[in-house]
Amino acid sequence: MQGQIRVTIENLSPELDGGRYSIKRIAGERVTLEADIFSDGHDEINARIAYKHAALDAWNYTAMVPIQNDRWKGSFVVETMGYWDFCIEAWVDHAMTWQHDLKKRVKGKQKVGVDLLIGANHLERIVKKATKREKVEINKVIALLRDEKKYEKAIEQALGNEVTDWIKRYPDVSICSHYPSEGKVFADRKKAGFSTWYELFPRSTSTELGKHGTFKDVEKVFPRLEEMGIDVLYLPPIHPIGVSNRKGKNNATVAKKGEYGSPWAIGSSEGGHKSILKDLGTLEDFQSMVKKAAEHGIEIALDYALQCSPDHPYVKEHPQWFTWRPDGTVQYAENPPKKYQDVLPINFETADWKNLWIELKSIAEFWIEQGVKIFRVDNPHTKPFPFWEWLIREIKEEHPEVLFLAEAFTRPKVMQLLGKLGFSQSYTYYSWRNTKGEITEYVNELTQTEMRNYFRPNFWPNTPDINPYMLQSGLESQFITRFFMAATLSSNYGFYGPVYEMMVHDAIPGKEEYLNSEKYEAKWWDWEATNKLKELIAIVNEARYENEALQQTNNIQFCETNNEKLIAYFKQNDHGTNSLLMIVNLDPYYKQGGYVKVPMNLFGKSDYIAYVVHDLINDTSYTWSREWNFVELDPYVMPCHLFRIEEV
Amino acid sequence: MQGQIRVTIENLSPELDGGRYSIKRIAGERVTLEADIFSDGHDEINARIAYKHAALDAWNYTAMVPIQNDRWKGSFVVETMGYWDFCIEAWVDHAMTWQHDLKKRVKGKQKVGVDLLIGANHLERIVKKATKREKVEINKVIALLRDEKKYEKAIEQALGNEVTDWIKRYPDVSICSHYPSEGKVFADRKKAGFSTWYELFPRSTSTELGKHGTFKDVEKVFPRLEEMGIDVLYLPPIHPIGVSNRKGKNNATVAKKGEYGSPWAIGSSEGGHKSILKDLGTLEDFQSMVKKAAEHGIEIALDYALQCSPDHPYVKEHPQWFTWRPDGTVQYAENPPKKYQDVLPINFETADWKNLWIELKSIAEFWIEQGVKIFRVDNPHTKPFPFWEWLIREIKEEHPEVLFLAEAFTRPKVMQLLGKLGFSQSYTYYSWRNTKGEITEYVNELTQTEMRNYFRPNFWPNTPDINPYMLQSGLESQFITRFFMAATLSSNYGFYGPVYEMMVHDAIPGKEEYLNSEKYEAKWWDWEATNKLKELIAIVNEARYENEALQQTNNIQFCETNNEKLIAYFKQNDHGTNSLLMIVNLDPYYKQGGYVKVPMNLFGKSDYIAYVVHDLINDTSYTWSREWNFVELDPYVMPCHLFRIEEV
Repeated sequence: MQGQIRVTIENLSPELDGGRYSIKRIAGERVTLEADIFSDGHDEINARIAYKHAALDAWNYTAMVPIQNDRWKGSFVVETMGYWDFCIEAWVDHAMTWQHDLKKRVKGKQKVGVDLLIGANHLERIVKKATKREKVEINKVIALLRDEKKYEKAIEQALGNEVTDWIKRYPDVSICSHYPSEGKVFADRKKAGFSTWYELFPRSTSTELGKHGTFKDVEKVFPRLEEMGIDVLYLPPIHPIGVSNRKGKNNATVAKKGEYGSPWAIGSSEGGHKSILKDLGTLEDFQSMVKKAAEHGIEIALDYALQCSPDHPYVKEHPQWFTWRPDGTVQYAENPPKKYQDVLPINFETADWKNLWIELKSIAEFWIEQGVKIFRVDNPHTKPFPFWEWLIREIKEEHPEVLFLAEAFTRPKVMQLLGKLGFSQSYTYYSWRNTKGEITEYVNELTQTEMRNYFRPNFWPNTPDINPYMLQSGLESQFITRFFMAATLSSNYGFYGPVYEMMVHDAIPGKEEYLNSEKYEAKWWDWEATNKLKELIAIVNEARYENEALQQTNNIQFCETNNEKLIAYFKQNDHGTNSLLMIVNLDPYYKQGGYVKVPMNLFGKSDYIAYVVHDLINDTSYTWSREWNFVELDPYVMPCHLFRIEEV
Repeated sequence: MQGQIRVTIENLSPELDGGRYSIKRIAGERVTLEADIFSDGHDEINARIAYKHAALDAWNYTAMVPIQNDRWKGSFVVETMGYWDFCIEAWVDHAMTWQHDLKKRVKGKQKVGVDLLIGANHLERIVKKATKREKVEINKVIALLRDEKKYEKAIEQALGNEVTDWIKRYPDVSICSHYPSEGKVFADRKKAGFSTWYELFPRSTSTELGKHGTFKDVEKVFPRLEEMGIDVLYLPPIHPIGVSNRKGKNNATVAKKGEYGSPWAIGSSEGGHKSILKDLGTLEDFQSMVKKAAEHGIEIALDYALQCSPDHPYVKEHPQWFTWRPDGTVQYAENPPKKYQDVLPINFETADWKNLWIELKSIAEFWIEQGVKIFRVDNPHTKPFPFWEWLIREIKEEHPEVLFLAEAFTRPKVMQLLGKLGFSQSYTYYSWRNTKGEITEYVNELTQTEMRNYFRPNFWPNTPDINPYMLQSGLESQFITRFFMAATLSSNYGFYGPVYEMMVHDAIPGKEEYLNSEKYEAKWWDWEATNKLKELIAIVNEARYENEALQQTNNIQFCETNNEKLIAYFKQNDHGTNSLLMIVNLDPYYKQGGYVKVPMNLFGKSDYIAYVVHDLINDTSYTWSREWNFVELDPYVMPCHLFRIEEV
């Protein structure tokens, strides 16, 4: 058998590391595959994709078609959530070759008596697989091909479409090539590709000055978040906070009495990763909050932060999961000469790694049981890659709806690998991509390279760890443009909530860190406050819900402008029925004008045919009819256009 | 163990189809590998290449070093012919991490007492592997690190080079990552990369008009070939020629009495692929010819043409190896409506494929026993790819010196796959690449892409099957430039001998085929004839032997010129001691002049420093000192420069 196989299948795309990692899609999306497929000699070949949901047994098949230069293409839809398997199959199609050659022989006026007999033999094979009704028809044709007296009629029949259809319907795949590795797709729910995040510290939600916020207080913020169009609320760790080496305000080595410490110093005598900090409420309060959030269209995302305070129960129960030093002390987190004494890293090189992995997985499972379906994973790049690959696969096989956001701000290849390992979304370098050149290059890398298949960017203009230099000016126009681009460049985005909304920007001098950071203390925000930025957030998020073009990221296309300060980009939904054009003035100080080249061919217009650009921010419309159009944006009024392209 | 592994190795290059196919090198050449290697966290990592000749058991190791952005590099030399295996290994280097961190802690003025104890533990592991002599030294350092009284001295010692050396020499690879697949290299003998081919029909070597040439006659041509610098003489099939459906002159369907037929219609009642056509001589004559050739520095290359005339003994002995039609006749070769009735294709889809493969392999083995080490494989693209992969591996494992030239003029991906399957050299599209743009693009594709690792081009300006339109004019300058470029663009090249030398160019009208083709008749050439082309061939081939820069192909670099008719390219040997500059006037009718940009940095010159360009064709020298220099080439005198760059 192996020696009879003649078709080669190679150079499959997309393919991640020889099929080791799954590509990502949203359930209902189409997966398009291409491969080089060819045989020796001149015979006709054929190819198909076999595909199925991993949980099912029966394969589905869909035909591939040649494009050019021995490259073939085919596609299928991943209808439901979960893992899908696919494989490419190809074979020499002798029956098809026979029919093609017969046509050429007849054209060359050759005698084809023997060829008709060969055709009858092909049909003998086909008739065995055919339906009862087809069998009657096929047997008639077989008899005809063998009837020397009906030579002319037999030729006509042999070259007819009916025979072609039978050949295509019942291919002989007894000698069949398979692509060397099965491919995998993971189909996520819609939110994996389109989500609007907000981060707040629940301890800072009390409206009573000096009082520790609770889950009940968080619930009170929901109407505000709903109004702004938020659909994921991410909470930093909600677990008991360690007492030993607790950090004080502004990361002081010693906490003063009454200071709350960093929520990332997880675990105390009250419990660890499956417990709740008493000050926030009870497990019942948590469950109630999750339910209440859902009523506002909001999902709660929890932090999955695999580290322990020195007081975490694991330290006593599983000392083998930590690193012990020759002096009998346990190793705390360090990046010499920096020290993080309130946090112990887990020693993933422990010989007891199997039990460790199972316990860590049980943490995620515990919160999934409480209704959590989204985890923001803290520093995944400081835990081993094989652990993530295993954990995410284990969880997703049971709970395909669960999403993991990788909080890794590190080197490019590490961030890419985390995407391949299965993280549903990833934080990005967006926070540090400011100029037109930087943004264009980076977004093209994310959306136009292999990364589009496995790395789903989530754009954040700020986080509790990142107070970017660009925003430290406190300029309203900067906060507006950085938000606007996050929300329209990327279909997944978020921001570190009240701090961003209220344009807080005080920094530790010379650093991209917040002064008086909420990481080490509680805050009391004015949850009734409003401003231009907040209103814009609501408008843009509403536009995101109403315009499919903004609900994906890889559909972006940058447009030429003749002014370096003006960045413009175009997005369109799959059916081509929703087309948006975003234009931003990157200059926070000065009005900028210039020409933008609109990709009119993408929405079916040619030069001099009028179309309307309708700005969804201020509900103003302009009629354009040319490829290049003039715009002017004033940072003190509104530095962005969010144009929907409409008919006149 | 698997769960403790933390280093990822990915994106290895070069790598062919996930390691399935071997890359190619010449024995003695260096293999340079790169891969992305990184771990979670901030620990130091290390990596090495394990490599060995496939026939040996013990692995050798060579260190890899980081280049940038998590990419690592290393290299090794494939000293001897045959298959080599390699694998990349990487690990977290805890001892190295300890030393690096210690340095930072000391710099940060931290107390490092415990760190010195940790270091002592690392050395405890190392001392077990160390030599007797080292053991003494290491134990002293261990004691020092544990001696609280000698704190300062211990720090100094711990940070010293001696400790670094021990750490490097005895890495702890107990938790080690391996690249998922082992890589393979095939190391060929020198001739695989540097060869000068000549094709002649032995039946056309008689000096007596009307007489069939013999192996003895071929021997008489050897001095001429040696003088011209030929080192491979390729003979079309030398086996008995079928009588049934024998072709006549100019491919006539019926041969006249006395016509010899096509040598590719292999097999008659006299024998098949292991027999010799009686008219040529005996097996002893053949063996004698092979020996005689060697005395002239020439190797005989035979045709490995897997097809049979209807009279081949296989047809009766192994009817299952052919395709039989419903009328009881055997299927001859066809490309409808074209028919090749004198040739039967082998049915590689036979259920008896195992015996077929073994018999076909025995043909190659038979001729290897007779002293043949080079096969020119006829139409490999019309036989299944798995067969070639198996055959070439089987032969090369026993006889690594054997070379296979793929005669596949077909679609790009098929030609590429044949290279990957193991063919040592491949015919190319050179015959149809004429303009500066065509030549530059094609040669860059062959030498600057992944193809450089597996596809060794062999440039032929003509073959018995290809009388290119470009040469049908018969212009001497065309014959000169097409030869000159074949010989200097590619280190492997050849030509269809007497026809090319003597500038025969009569074509079947409208086709790239020779009129009165030698494929269907014998010729009587004047083996004493000489002309300018023949003299040039001798000069250029001598230059190829004397200048290492011309003995490889991938070292090519095209140079800018300001005249589209002037093509210029530069080659340098590995040590940078031999630099050549070739310039060709592609206009066969007119003198062309223009400026050529010389890559002076590559031979260590900067502007205004004089150097000599010495034309090896006419032994003339010019002193240049600038990057751009003027040349003028007259097609009626000599359309090429073959400059060696020399010191003033």
